Amino acid sequence: MTNLNQQIRNLKLIIAYEGTRYAGFQRQTSEVLTIQGELEQTLNKLTRETITTHAAGRTDAGVHASGQVVNFHTETQMSLAKFQQALNALLPEDIIVKEISEVPISFHARYSAQAKTYSYHLVHGSLRPLFKRNFAYYYRYPLDAGLMRQAAELIIGTKDFRAFQAAGSSVKTSVRTVNFCELNEQENELTFRINANGFLYHMVRNIVGTLILVGNHRLDLAEFERIIAAKDRRAAGPTAPAKGLCLEEVYY
Amino acid sequence: MTNLNQQIRNLKLIIAYEGTRYAGFQRQTSEVLTIQGELEQTLNKLTRETITTHAAGRTDAGVHASGQVVNFHTETQMSLAKFQQALNALLPEDIIVKEISEVPISFHARYSAQAKTYSYHLVHGSLRPLFKRNFAYYYRYPLDAGLMRQAAELIIGTKDFRAFQAAGSSVKTSVRTVNFCELNEQENELTFRINANGFLYHMVRNIVGTLILVGNHRLDLAEFERIIAAKDRRAAGPTAPAKGLCLEEVYY
Repeated sequence: MTNLNQQIRNLKLIIAYEGTRYAGFQRQTSEVLTIQGELEQTLNKLTRETITTHAAGRTDAGVHASGQVVNFHTETQMSLAKFQQALNALLPEDIIVKEISEVPISFHARYSAQAKTYSYHLVHGSLRPLFKRNFAYYYRYPLDAGLMRQAAELIIGTKDFRAFQAAGSSVKTSVRTVNFCELNEQENELTFRINANGFLYHMVRNIVGTLILVGNHRLDLAEFERIIAAKDRRAAGPTAPAKGLCLEEVYY
Repeated sequence: MTNLNQQIRNLKLIIAYEGTRYAGFQRQTSEVLTIQGELEQTLNKLTRETITTHAAGRTDAGVHASGQVVNFHTETQMSLAKFQQALNALLPEDIIVKEISEVPISFHARYSAQAKTYSYHLVHGSLRPLFKRNFAYYYRYPLDAGLMRQAAELIIGTKDFRAFQAAGSSVKTSVRTVNFCELNEQENELTFRINANGFLYHMVRNIVGTLILVGNHRLDLAEFERIIAAKDRRAAGPTAPAKGLCLEEVYY
């Protein structure tokens, strides 16, 4: 019999991970390495419960996170500081719990999220990246960052982003509100950062793939705008590789 | 018969590497992975010669470089740009040739060096590093960076640094000139940077190990100064781990 007096707590974690070794966030069969699998296995070991975690965004294989949010219900009465310390001692070295807090029982990392920020890192030019090789997509040709920045600004607003949705997705609506969308250049490194109230599947990587066409003068700004307006996935660019993408922050 | 008219060139490379996978710079038997082994194998493949490289500093296992310098003699007449491109296409992804130039035939990466800069990265506090885990030593206790900075300043100058020399080293003199020695703090990350006309074996890592004792209030500044003056290796701190160390620049 469950002890009904035992208080159930809803805990919220902010976690970071390097996605390189993983088949993505979402738990699969036990033979496949996933962030959720590693996290739940560690939580189960610590609490001796069978814990199910909910994440704000189920990142794909190779995608990183510096501020993924996860919640789960538990009966553990461990202090939060001790719990965090124990988790970080047991988790693999490429996953870390940055913050832990107790939240109202109804909080859900995915459904309660108001907005998320993703970044995408690109290195261009003749030298492939060394220290950032797992965290940036290397594009060997020159890119016109000024033009890409202008195109990025055209994305801001409430629009139907079907042009940037992975083929075969089935969501009720492909309208999303992009709050900011910016591109920063530092030497041969471009950092794209986008905040929206929600993202379609592969949306960031498809936007980046299309911005690369702009930076490479294969698409002009008018064509870029037309692709969005026409919701034309086929005219948009290819999906940029996973390794450049990072889930930075989730807003509630 | 060697074609005596074939011009011998002396080429200088500036290379960067992540040392994590390697047993150090220096070539060993063919079963052991080394930077020099990988580099020479690639050079041999491209030139069809048997090339011997000379490096400014033979970094230890796990030590990184962002500006290691290497030279070698070759008969190749390939253009430098093409040669660099071919090297970077063939080298493992954790080694890169940043620059290539032709230098006078007498130039020797080690013997011609006037000074070198090394950095050492430390992360302290309750959170182990994630993205920098292979590039920083994680020290979980608090460190008094102000005190460490004062101790670092005591290292500057021409001194006998035997206190920081690995036991069993046999070099003619342990006198070296440290041109600058500084410590910068950014959030929970400390970056130690030192420039000298030469370094004793394990000198940087032994200095850092001793600075940690200062930062941890186990040694005060007077004791730190006494250890240097007394050339007392046993009173100095332990050798800090290799992964925090990086050869940044070599001056000629």
